[in-house]
Amino acid sequence: MSTMNASARQVYDNSIVIDGLIISNWSGEIFREMRQAGLTAANCTCSVWEGFEATIQNIAKWNGWFRQYPDDIVKAQSVEDIVAAKSAGKTAIILGMQNTTAFEDQIGYVEILKNLGIGIAQMTYNTQNWVGSGCYEGRDSGLSDFGREIVAEMNRVGMLCDLSHVGPATSRDVIDTSKKPVAYSHCLPAGLKTHPRNKTDDELRYIVDKGGFVGVTMFPPFLSKGAQSNIDDYIFAIDYVINLVGEDSVGIGTDFTQGYGDDFFRWITHDKGFGRKLTDFGEVKNPDGIRRISDFPNLADAMSRSGWSNSKIEKVLGGNWLGLLQRVWSA
Amino acid sequence: MSTMNASARQVYDNSIVIDGLIISNWSGEIFREMRQAGLTAANCTCSVWEGFEATIQNIAKWNGWFRQYPDDIVKAQSVEDIVAAKSAGKTAIILGMQNTTAFEDQIGYVEILKNLGIGIAQMTYNTQNWVGSGCYEGRDSGLSDFGREIVAEMNRVGMLCDLSHVGPATSRDVIDTSKKPVAYSHCLPAGLKTHPRNKTDDELRYIVDKGGFVGVTMFPPFLSKGAQSNIDDYIFAIDYVINLVGEDSVGIGTDFTQGYGDDFFRWITHDKGFGRKLTDFGEVKNPDGIRRISDFPNLADAMSRSGWSNSKIEKVLGGNWLGLLQRVWSA
Repeated sequence: MSTMNASARQVYDNSIVIDGLIISNWSGEIFREMRQAGLTAANCTCSVWEGFEATIQNIAKWNGWFRQYPDDIVKAQSVEDIVAAKSAGKTAIILGMQNTTAFEDQIGYVEILKNLGIGIAQMTYNTQNWVGSGCYEGRDSGLSDFGREIVAEMNRVGMLCDLSHVGPATSRDVIDTSKKPVAYSHCLPAGLKTHPRNKTDDELRYIVDKGGFVGVTMFPPFLSKGAQSNIDDYIFAIDYVINLVGEDSVGIGTDFTQGYGDDFFRWITHDKGFGRKLTDFGEVKNPDGIRRISDFPNLADAMSRSGWSNSKIEKVLGGNWLGLLQRVWSA
Repeated sequence: MSTMNASARQVYDNSIVIDGLIISNWSGEIFREMRQAGLTAANCTCSVWEGFEATIQNIAKWNGWFRQYPDDIVKAQSVEDIVAAKSAGKTAIILGMQNTTAFEDQIGYVEILKNLGIGIAQMTYNTQNWVGSGCYEGRDSGLSDFGREIVAEMNRVGMLCDLSHVGPATSRDVIDTSKKPVAYSHCLPAGLKTHPRNKTDDELRYIVDKGGFVGVTMFPPFLSKGAQSNIDDYIFAIDYVINLVGEDSVGIGTDFTQGYGDDFFRWITHDKGFGRKLTDFGEVKNPDGIRRISDFPNLADAMSRSGWSNSKIEKVLGGNWLGLLQRVWSA
């Protein structure tokens, strides 16, 4: 990237910066890179296909990392924790699940997992589960009755319903059913590329009309130029969404998969981790200019280059996410 | 009981009253009775032979009860919660385990369970497990190496090591190994009745010499007069312990099993709930004068009748327990 515009860098440094989805190969190096990149908070995936016990063991691993890397990361269980992390120059970790498999058949597990730090959970991951259906499923009959109970319990305990990988009918049911705002934490507009994971203009407008939120991803397979995309293409996609829904309900959700290789992509693209093949991403090479987590500050420069006001930059970098989490996590 | 001494009742009403062990058949009636009896806090058993998942499901049940009976009970996760319960006239529930089965082979589960409210855990329940041995086991070779790691982790996260049902060699190892005070939460002196569950004068002195604590139970099979005992026999047993270790490290640990029938006693007296028979309690009828939880205030009267000073009554009713929990739960 070119040398960053000084004022954009200043805006970045003063902003609460929140990444609505990272699923990288967690390590001390990644945590240091997140902190050094100025990430105030991130929704870090700790469960995809795992059941309850394996998810708990992942959380226990995170508890160990919080002890091992106290200068880089802290657990985020409230908006206050995120604000405190900004002051301390650390990255607040929102533990997130990309599936509700870990709830198993126990509504009570929602509160148990919330108490342990899970602040965000996606209702389904690509395929059908007990709650509803996924974006790669042949048919989607919407939220199950159990799913309705899960949404109500997530509302009660303050856990954000994420719909990024969820099927269209189930997404609509969750948006209609939830008493708190819900989110696509990491998605791209189908208006720029048709793809099962991308959301139509109507879908993007619908969630925001109902008080919800859109985090925009840069995951290359869902961008129109694929692996040839650059950071300006990403900003263009964010602006596409903002033009549809306004600048107050949009944020970042990179989907960084840093440090992972083929095994990981095989695992996430097969049903339940080992079943039928759902999709093939091809080469996963993030857009030029935002290849690695350390490139995060380049976002402010690119936004500024696109003519964004400082206030728009601040909101999309994290202010909007913070407001959403405040609304969902508070009683 | 005779009409209570007015001054003893006053002392009772002003005291923080803590029961170091209750394992009753939990229900709205029991919670109301605890609150109406003026119990400020109680160590309530939510795991005996259960593994991790079944224990979590028991905690989820408790979470439901906290919502269902908010006027009677609150979860206690700190000494401040107990003090606040006293002011609010409610009973603070310390979730406790009478075994470490729920830790399974995962040291990380100690912190997970602590985060969910488990403030006290007994290292073994009657028989050998991965941590050590129990008081009904033929041989006791002391704490296992895994057990040493569990003690260190309980010290770190602030979970009290309970030794009531633990074998003598394992108990001694835990007392020697632990960096924080440990407790017999509910035991009786072998000096008054020889029984595998009762502790010798040397054992009682040893734990307190090392900074630990003794909660005295009234469970009739371990009292010299058995089911013929009355509340004064219970106070006599408490005084026996106090004469050995002083009045600052002794408290109450009733072991109320209110509302349970034969099935429950079969379950707790067989290894792992269904294995070999370990003991036979015969008739479980609590001492006259302290038959039910609602009789709790009679303790103050009986203590006063035995010539106890108000300050001694206050300490044994709960002040000593509170100080112990403060030392164990704080960082």
